[in-house]
Amino acid sequence: MLRIRWELLLMAIICWHRGHTDNHEAKQSLGHVTVVVVGGTGDLARKYLWQGFFQLYADEVGKGHTFSFYGGGLSPTENGTTLLFGILKELACPPELSAERCALIKDQFLHLSQYHQLKTSEDYEKLSQKIKEQVGQEGMVEAGRLFYLSVPAFAYADIAEKINNTCRPPPDAWLRVVLEKPFGHDFASAQSLDKKLSGQLKEEEMYRIDHYLGKQVVSKILPFRKENRKLLDPIWNKHHIERIEIVLKETLDAKGRIQFYDQYGVIRDVLQNHLTEVMTLMLMNLPANLSNSKEILQNKLNFLASLQHVDNSNAVVGQYQAYNGEVQEELNKTKDYFSLTPTFAGVLIHVDNAQYEGIPIFMTSGKALDERVAYARVIFKSDVFCVQDLNNVQCKSKQIIFYLGHGNLQYPAILVSKNLFKPDLVSSGDWKEVTEYKEVDVLGLPLSDYYIQTPVVPREAYCELISHVFFGRKDRFISAEGLLASWAFWTPLLESLTQVFPRVYPGGVANGNLLNFKLRGHQVAFSHEAVVNVINPGAEDNFQVMQGKYRSSEMISAWAQELVDRLASDLLLAAEEAIREEGQFHLALSGGSSPVALLRALALNLYTFPWRNTHIWQVDERCVPHTESGSNFRSIHDLLLQHIRIPYFNIHPMPVHLTQRLCVEEDGGPTLYEKEIKKHVNASSFHYILLGVGQDGHTASLFQDTKLESDEERLVTLTESPIKPHQRMSLTFTAINRARRVGVLIMGKNKHELVSQLSRIKGESSKYPITKVQPKSGTLIWYIDYDALLG
Amino acid sequence: MLRIRWELLLMAIICWHRGHTDNHEAKQSLGHVTVVVVGGTGDLARKYLWQGFFQLYADEVGKGHTFSFYGGGLSPTENGTTLLFGILKELACPPELSAERCALIKDQFLHLSQYHQLKTSEDYEKLSQKIKEQVGQEGMVEAGRLFYLSVPAFAYADIAEKINNTCRPPPDAWLRVVLEKPFGHDFASAQSLDKKLSGQLKEEEMYRIDHYLGKQVVSKILPFRKENRKLLDPIWNKHHIERIEIVLKETLDAKGRIQFYDQYGVIRDVLQNHLTEVMTLMLMNLPANLSNSKEILQNKLNFLASLQHVDNSNAVVGQYQAYNGEVQEELNKTKDYFSLTPTFAGVLIHVDNAQYEGIPIFMTSGKALDERVAYARVIFKSDVFCVQDLNNVQCKSKQIIFYLGHGNLQYPAILVSKNLFKPDLVSSGDWKEVTEYKEVDVLGLPLSDYYIQTPVVPREAYCELISHVFFGRKDRFISAEGLLASWAFWTPLLESLTQVFPRVYPGGVANGNLLNFKLRGHQVAFSHEAVVNVINPGAEDNFQVMQGKYRSSEMISAWAQELVDRLASDLLLAAEEAIREEGQFHLALSGGSSPVALLRALALNLYTFPWRNTHIWQVDERCVPHTESGSNFRSIHDLLLQHIRIPYFNIHPMPVHLTQRLCVEEDGGPTLYEKEIKKHVNASSFHYILLGVGQDGHTASLFQDTKLESDEERLVTLTESPIKPHQRMSLTFTAINRARRVGVLIMGKNKHELVSQLSRIKGESSKYPITKVQPKSGTLIWYIDYDALLG
Repeated sequence: MLRIRWELLLMAIICWHRGHTDNHEAKQSLGHVTVVVVGGTGDLARKYLWQGFFQLYADEVGKGHTFSFYGGGLSPTENGTTLLFGILKELACPPELSAERCALIKDQFLHLSQYHQLKTSEDYEKLSQKIKEQVGQEGMVEAGRLFYLSVPAFAYADIAEKINNTCRPPPDAWLRVVLEKPFGHDFASAQSLDKKLSGQLKEEEMYRIDHYLGKQVVSKILPFRKENRKLLDPIWNKHHIERIEIVLKETLDAKGRIQFYDQYGVIRDVLQNHLTEVMTLMLMNLPANLSNSKEILQNKLNFLASLQHVDNSNAVVGQYQAYNGEVQEELNKTKDYFSLTPTFAGVLIHVDNAQYEGIPIFMTSGKALDERVAYARVIFKSDVFCVQDLNNVQCKSKQIIFYLGHGNLQYPAILVSKNLFKPDLVSSGDWKEVTEYKEVDVLGLPLSDYYIQTPVVPREAYCELISHVFFGRKDRFISAEGLLASWAFWTPLLESLTQVFPRVYPGGVANGNLLNFKLRGHQVAFSHEAVVNVINPGAEDNFQVMQGKYRSSEMISAWAQELVDRLASDLLLAAEEAIREEGQFHLALSGGSSPVALLRALALNLYTFPWRNTHIWQVDERCVPHTESGSNFRSIHDLLLQHIRIPYFNIHPMPVHLTQRLCVEEDGGPTLYEKEIKKHVNASSFHYILLGVGQDGHTASLFQDTKLESDEERLVTLTESPIKPHQRMSLTFTAINRARRVGVLIMGKNKHELVSQLSRIKGESSKYPITKVQPKSGTLIWYIDYDALLG
Repeated sequence: MLRIRWELLLMAIICWHRGHTDNHEAKQSLGHVTVVVVGGTGDLARKYLWQGFFQLYADEVGKGHTFSFYGGGLSPTENGTTLLFGILKELACPPELSAERCALIKDQFLHLSQYHQLKTSEDYEKLSQKIKEQVGQEGMVEAGRLFYLSVPAFAYADIAEKINNTCRPPPDAWLRVVLEKPFGHDFASAQSLDKKLSGQLKEEEMYRIDHYLGKQVVSKILPFRKENRKLLDPIWNKHHIERIEIVLKETLDAKGRIQFYDQYGVIRDVLQNHLTEVMTLMLMNLPANLSNSKEILQNKLNFLASLQHVDNSNAVVGQYQAYNGEVQEELNKTKDYFSLTPTFAGVLIHVDNAQYEGIPIFMTSGKALDERVAYARVIFKSDVFCVQDLNNVQCKSKQIIFYLGHGNLQYPAILVSKNLFKPDLVSSGDWKEVTEYKEVDVLGLPLSDYYIQTPVVPREAYCELISHVFFGRKDRFISAEGLLASWAFWTPLLESLTQVFPRVYPGGVANGNLLNFKLRGHQVAFSHEAVVNVINPGAEDNFQVMQGKYRSSEMISAWAQELVDRLASDLLLAAEEAIREEGQFHLALSGGSSPVALLRALALNLYTFPWRNTHIWQVDERCVPHTESGSNFRSIHDLLLQHIRIPYFNIHPMPVHLTQRLCVEEDGGPTLYEKEIKKHVNASSFHYILLGVGQDGHTASLFQDTKLESDEERLVTLTESPIKPHQRMSLTFTAINRARRVGVLIMGKNKHELVSQLSRIKGESSKYPITKVQPKSGTLIWYIDYDALLG
């Protein structure tokens, strides 16, 4: 048998190893390792995977493991074998190897590799049999089996099942199955795929690849932050960071790949995975230990959970002009078919924590742009006052760039502007400092204004990742939780974009300023008027606010976002008026889902709201502790109070939880709240009460069956809700109808029927508590969005 | 009589008037106006005042008023008259007048002017007599008397008394007395001067001049903001403004004026008045009515009240190298005399309101710098993401500059970068747009990148102000309240600088980078090491933190600021440890004065403090409502809670005010707080309790006479303080000694004796409650500053 134990033979011959050593190596128990590339003769395998496994073999040969490699596929063995060896013969030599050694190792590698048809369960069973025989012949134990699924995602579940049923290694050996994106196209589909796979494979057996995590610069982000921690700690926060940009620009278009691309678009293709991973590594909490996969994955999760909600108000999208024609052609569509798939996206992201809040993060990617380049950079605020010579380098902008390649620089590198600090290069010899400067500008500064670090030996991302799979570095892969967290973040944006017409751009340098976009509060919009917009001319005129009458009171109607903006600005006017007259503004807010967008607008878009003189009261509350997520106060707190500067004393949560249990009569919560209202609010007449309406016509927590005490003077009461949690505390109609202004906000198609019914009822109806809202001397205004109004 | 009613004669001849018309004019009742320049032959009068009054005369002649002008001084009449007419003959013609008309008006003006000795009360009485005669001869009523005190400030009170006693106009006529800075040299002296003057003159009679308020660009700031309100409103806030710079650079030195200058220095000379006024106009709330002096002055006051405390940690100071020699010479000092008066200052100011908080305001002025220039500018954050062509003008920095003159531009102007917006020029024809661009850079951008507005006719500040006095525009002057508010802001800095050695700079262009300074949190420091520092070599090594033992426990000692920084960072470590172990950090804070600096440091300098997981408790509280300024909670709230993002639920104020009166037994406040502690704090063992010590040895609100209940398990109790307010609520020693860590912070010379005494006492002493602080299993650390330790 020629094939056995080449590795052992070679131990004596080759004693070289890579500069790169890995702590995890120690953990590997020696034995036979089987690598199976499913889809082993496909494109990706040809371009990257076999090269990666060859590198792995070259790195690991002679260290005690033995290997065999299988290319698997649907073709019959004969065809497959020809195809596979066609690929393997072309493998390039790793740069560290001399030609002579390489020839030797490559020869071995070819001997250890074979094609195996993988179609049916029997095929997998046969493979398993073959592996056992091989291990037996070698007299080794089996260390593990590595399956690389280089196949379309729809095939994952089936293959996973076959592996699980018939091709698992013996209990002591590991099983690792590598998967490639796309992992679903939104939260629900990702969850469903995850469910299918996790029925067959354990989480620790799955290695979900994002090849960006294999890029040398990307995997250097955490070590760089750690090595320079002392210098970075004081500036890595909202007080010093002006903005962050995470950018992948391509010159290529999607032509020829439309079948795939048109289902996904740039956000799913690039932002949800690659760019999100880069952002996460830049901003997640540094783990105490860079080798602790669990801590890293947990910190990533925490970071993703701290991202602020993003929807189409935080994004701009574009589509290169030729795209739609390509779609019509490649998908056999008619000439009046329009695809709304974006090929360009610019998204503004904010992190909702004390360290980063307020920093604008611009994430951008697009096809058919003017240049090919990928980078992530942190731009710092200028912290210097230059008394003299403002153009001095010390007074220029400061930035740190994680440069992934191409563009002006051409090679991957980490750049730190010289007026910031000189970064450490303490870790192993993998990275070196660049001291020869080409005469180019990189992102606004001449190259000589930067300290530059670059990898000593450039390595392909797949090479790196294959090595990480081998060493079980789970943190270099996407965890199930991380994947779902990322989809949870991106899905609301994707959903809100389904009806948005992308701006059409010509492609290439001709794009000019067309795709630049700018901030408007926490929202973004293109900076310049579109000159080319064949898809949706005049779309921007569609949004108008309409005023009319509803149930004999004033009604304001608009699309949801405009409606909320209008209500927010009406609240501001009411606040300013009240403060001018009385020095204070008393605002009572409802719970439920309608006010969410409003609270967000108040928190983020109205800078000048006079919070210092505003008192926040509650219209109603559920009898749950305030810290629980079902609490109305908790949602007011998280959406609004945490974002504004309002004195502690001006916040008046309903006392649903006093010394006894929740909302017990003996605690006298309603009386207490009443007392507080009387103490602060002139004539117990709130300046503004904001109400919502349930589909059943209830408002505040006053339901159809609610029996109010006969005492008409009561302002606050305990009530019972037909839905959980049943116990509630609520302002009474007496309190509501005393207000100077009452706004009722109704949004969404599911309220349309109610809105129609209410419009037909004159005066009160015991069936619909909302009809009892009739301010005595104040005004009532209905804010109804078009969905609720028009259905 | 040649001199009578020239004005009436001229009505027919001269019908020209200035483009500038003033709403206030209508209010003036016609009659005779007397102008008295006390110190009328002095420098200022020669250079500016007479020219101003000549302009006033030229503007107002023929509109119905009649005038007479007196130059007053200590010289006998003959000498004075010669001097005065020497000055008057040199008066320049207002640019609007033809030579012919000017000659005519000047001739009149000379006829209406005379010298009058003003030394004794009798002199003032005689003057009053003379005025009455003059008015009588004209057959006019008296409209008013305008006294311009162009004399050293020490003479103000005396002159005011004389005017009040013997030279007041009749009851229906106005009296206006114009005063020039310096108005005191700190808060106390300004208050004392104000007291003296207000005994003689009513506030509405005093016109305190800041000649910056007469500069055309400065007086255009509010109108500019108002005219462009729609465009500015969305960006004039912390979300869009990156920084603000208010700068007056001089090339001149103080030579020859040391007698005056050395008592004042650059902060009193320029920052406290001129630059503060400019800042105020830029950032105060816009008045609804720009002609409403009262509203303007009130808004100015509100703004000054919103400034954050400034001391020497927020400032850098310098002194030009030759200065000290000039001091020795001009003040007849010996060669070993060193003046600490700064001739350069850079101060970092923050506004403590929701609109501007966090924006760094750099206020800088100095003598012997590289160029003469004065400007105030607002630099905006870039709000654009440029996908392509980052050097495009749209992607450049955006700014608005109020350019007061000199420098590259040479003329006063308001500049708005073209990528921001095109400002309106709606107001009268006083201002014009500049459309011819010199080829110069102004503050980082070529001139052609700006929209530029400039006054049509340049007017001297004093001219403007004299006209404003005449029209009673009080808002163009400093009110007593405004003056005191400004001193209240600047005095703490001035006091904290009395022992600070200014950095010595060579002067002129040779200063290089020496005076550049940079932010460190909310503090500033020079950016570069000093190369010349003859005054205080090695001073920076003096600050070190010392560790030792005190009363058998660990002690940390340092100068106050270093001590506080150390304590803050120890708290951060404790918080991180607690959160790592238990997910939460429970911190109990004391009231009183010691923690003020600490709370400030925690609020402003520790960005990464994990507030979201920190619970704030109180060590003790005074029985006053939480909203009152005497409340410990109020001070924790204002200094700390308002500046951080801490969940509402994590704040635990002591319940001193429940349903009954303050701290009544029946309310069971202590029991309630105890319950809350037990609910949240593991084993009722706080992670950190921060204590102070009174001079009498009390800590928390536990005094020598406090009798604690026999129940050793009580955690909270009501106590009586020997000083007001007597009633207190406090943690008990039981609670304190259960803590994991207790820090005792002692600062200030007045604690030195106590610190010495305590060091001699072993174990407990009933005289000193602090000695009973002996954590059972926790650690006790003393933080004692050098003043308290060394006296």
